[in-house]
Amino acid sequence: MNISIGVRNPRTGQVDYSITPPTPSDLAEQCRHLRNAQIDWQQGGLKARIEAFQQWKQAVQVHREELIQALVADTGRLSVSALEVDSFLGSLDRWCHLAPDFLEGEERNTAIPFIRIQQTAVPYALVGVISPWNFPLLLSTIDTIPALLAGCAVVVKPSEIAPRFVEPLMKAIATVPALQSVLTYVTGAGETGANLIGQVDLICFTGSVATGRKVAVAAAQHFIPAFLELGGKDPAIVLKSADLELATSAILWGSVVNTGQSCLSIERIYVADTIFDQFVEQLVSKAKTLKLAYPTVEDGQIGPIIAERQATIITDHLQDAIAKGAIVHCGGKVESLEGGLWHRPTVLTNVNHSMKVMTEETFAPIMPVMPFPTVQAAIELANDTIYGLSAAVFAGSEAEAIEIANQINAGAISINDAALTAIMHEGEKNAFKFSGMGGSRMGAAALKRFMRKKALLIKTQAITDPWWFQS
Amino acid sequence: MNISIGVRNPRTGQVDYSITPPTPSDLAEQCRHLRNAQIDWQQGGLKARIEAFQQWKQAVQVHREELIQALVADTGRLSVSALEVDSFLGSLDRWCHLAPDFLEGEERNTAIPFIRIQQTAVPYALVGVISPWNFPLLLSTIDTIPALLAGCAVVVKPSEIAPRFVEPLMKAIATVPALQSVLTYVTGAGETGANLIGQVDLICFTGSVATGRKVAVAAAQHFIPAFLELGGKDPAIVLKSADLELATSAILWGSVVNTGQSCLSIERIYVADTIFDQFVEQLVSKAKTLKLAYPTVEDGQIGPIIAERQATIITDHLQDAIAKGAIVHCGGKVESLEGGLWHRPTVLTNVNHSMKVMTEETFAPIMPVMPFPTVQAAIELANDTIYGLSAAVFAGSEAEAIEIANQINAGAISINDAALTAIMHEGEKNAFKFSGMGGSRMGAAALKRFMRKKALLIKTQAITDPWWFQS
Repeated sequence: MNISIGVRNPRTGQVDYSITPPTPSDLAEQCRHLRNAQIDWQQGGLKARIEAFQQWKQAVQVHREELIQALVADTGRLSVSALEVDSFLGSLDRWCHLAPDFLEGEERNTAIPFIRIQQTAVPYALVGVISPWNFPLLLSTIDTIPALLAGCAVVVKPSEIAPRFVEPLMKAIATVPALQSVLTYVTGAGETGANLIGQVDLICFTGSVATGRKVAVAAAQHFIPAFLELGGKDPAIVLKSADLELATSAILWGSVVNTGQSCLSIERIYVADTIFDQFVEQLVSKAKTLKLAYPTVEDGQIGPIIAERQATIITDHLQDAIAKGAIVHCGGKVESLEGGLWHRPTVLTNVNHSMKVMTEETFAPIMPVMPFPTVQAAIELANDTIYGLSAAVFAGSEAEAIEIANQINAGAISINDAALTAIMHEGEKNAFKFSGMGGSRMGAAALKRFMRKKALLIKTQAITDPWWFQS
Repeated sequence: MNISIGVRNPRTGQVDYSITPPTPSDLAEQCRHLRNAQIDWQQGGLKARIEAFQQWKQAVQVHREELIQALVADTGRLSVSALEVDSFLGSLDRWCHLAPDFLEGEERNTAIPFIRIQQTAVPYALVGVISPWNFPLLLSTIDTIPALLAGCAVVVKPSEIAPRFVEPLMKAIATVPALQSVLTYVTGAGETGANLIGQVDLICFTGSVATGRKVAVAAAQHFIPAFLELGGKDPAIVLKSADLELATSAILWGSVVNTGQSCLSIERIYVADTIFDQFVEQLVSKAKTLKLAYPTVEDGQIGPIIAERQATIITDHLQDAIAKGAIVHCGGKVESLEGGLWHRPTVLTNVNHSMKVMTEETFAPIMPVMPFPTVQAAIELANDTIYGLSAAVFAGSEAEAIEIANQINAGAISINDAALTAIMHEGEKNAFKFSGMGGSRMGAAALKRFMRKKALLIKTQAITDPWWFQS
């Protein structure tokens, strides 16, 4: 018997939806079907896969409104839900456009005139994707799209906290039979995710460091590659020479968008001491203009806290900071409104690295701001972390900013903007430290992660003498 | 107190050498020094690293004879020892030549006119290399060279079975101070290897599947990438149309070189049934011409079995095959001569996949030959394995061979030759199944494995309006 899991609504706090995880044998059976179908999907070639993607795109457009409404129910926020659907559709097109270049076989000559090399690539048959609740659609498809295009079959296990979008998405997928046979979503919690790792040839995981480390070990035990995209504690550095208007607006966005529930949100801000007061004043004033998306989803900009358990962490980080002397300039607490949990944009000063809010991932629209005396001190503060996902640097000149960016241990650095990897996926990047492992999810090469390289070494002359054999 | 480990001489069976593993705190201390020195090594730039490599090359040439003699003592064979040194020197030059292209930063424009991306790469600070005994020098440097050139410091733990080459190699390294500060060899057995994994930022391991799987899990527990190059059971397929002279010579070489002690040696041979008898006759006749490198290293072509424990496995595989009906055409047993263990080239027929000699890595100059009725049957036999390192296909036409090669689940397929990846490292390849994991060790991209990609996303206009913020 499968036991269903209740799903809480982030705006009401009520359990108003449920999912039923597959039994281990159900899951194994589904994976067998996917593996069978993958053979045709791969052999059908890239053109057929692009055709299926275009049909998928049209089908999602048909179900667009339903999908957005499901995401709104999952996450409690409207505009980011619409943005998720549009970004997903854009991503389908972008990959269809990029893939032809990257799947061409290559020929290369070698130093030996009668040997040439033909380079091909073979997709992993079945890829598993375990995705989180903060961007339910986008993060369940960010690895899925290139994996499918590479010729893999994919089984996705989205978060049990925000699974409502799966139904309308599956409706759209069901209208494209070629795709339906190689792409399945299974709903469930951690146990289903753990079972999935034992069924697939490669696992993609987006989520917390703690769970990501468990996934890494489980994948190693099954001897499959794991691509891990984990947490961050992204710093922003604002130099004396920076354009303050630009810096405060960009940092505010980088911190509060999606209520700070983004791995790449700005969670620590270091500002040159000479402009510190001015910076804080401007940031607080801008932060105060933002409103909660309450009582209706059409209101304000700041949606509810999606995961109830996250609210506990946020409160813990805030209480710890306040107990250690942090000053709250605006916001500063989790608010409960008709069962939903909310958090207004919050600016903190008088913070330091003894506080959790400066060292652990908070996942909230909280902006702790700390002054620095020298650029070297700023770099050291930025690097004083177990994370290394991304960062931002604001400076009057590009050269000044790049000089600092080169010294920050993180995979992507936005210069004179914040959190640009949220919208720009062109640059290749690897996570540093505990923020992740595996090939870059971004950049055109991200598709190649899903294929094994294969080299045919062809001797073109029938030389019978053992020319290589040194007796 | 460190406890020393005795080392057996493969020609005499006597323990005539010993190594002393570092204590865990010694090892940690050495790693700290390497990390400190790595900063200058990286910042010094590629040109300085190439310069150090050229000095290393000259120093190795000075110590060439001593190094070869140490390898002869380690492995009991002469010509392959000289080949190892020459291949290593060639590899130094090849990487110095390739690297400049691959370490250039790239600029790319994006779809948004006021954002451009500057792509850089950051080496892992400290790379660990755990290498095996079959090609002691070559396999301890194959990952070390590109890692150093990428800007990493490297600590190598070679096999305790063949560690004598370390002394002369360290003498050469000591003459290049810049290199000496970032490259250390530590001697020891499994425990030292396990300690090493906890000290480095990335681990390269070449060896058995069983140990490789443990390394994968240990690396995951420490959350570091593992590049694993493990065992193989490489098949050769010989079609009716193949040039028999060529096929038997190449397969013989591919099986017996280094006494079969190579991960990419041919260990299973499938021959079209119509030419089976002719093939076996020719292979046996060529195999019988090869002699043991005994009583002196200048004699014959077939060196001793290097690892005593391997002889037990070989005998087990042979006894299992013979008990199940295999016919021995030549060779067929481990021979003990004055304390050394030897194995003559051995051809077996009447073999099948119930025998260990057809399914487990034997690591000996043993050629089990099996007829196949159809090409499809040959492909299925070739793929009926837990390994997927490499393979060989012999056919009258390239097209015929490539058609088959495309259906074999292995990372490199030699066409009308055998084991070409032993000498050609130009093609990118990934291991299939249990033969390995991690980026390709071959091809120019192998160097990039040792660097994290970093993207600077640069906004080039001071647009203060939150253009990205959809409220």
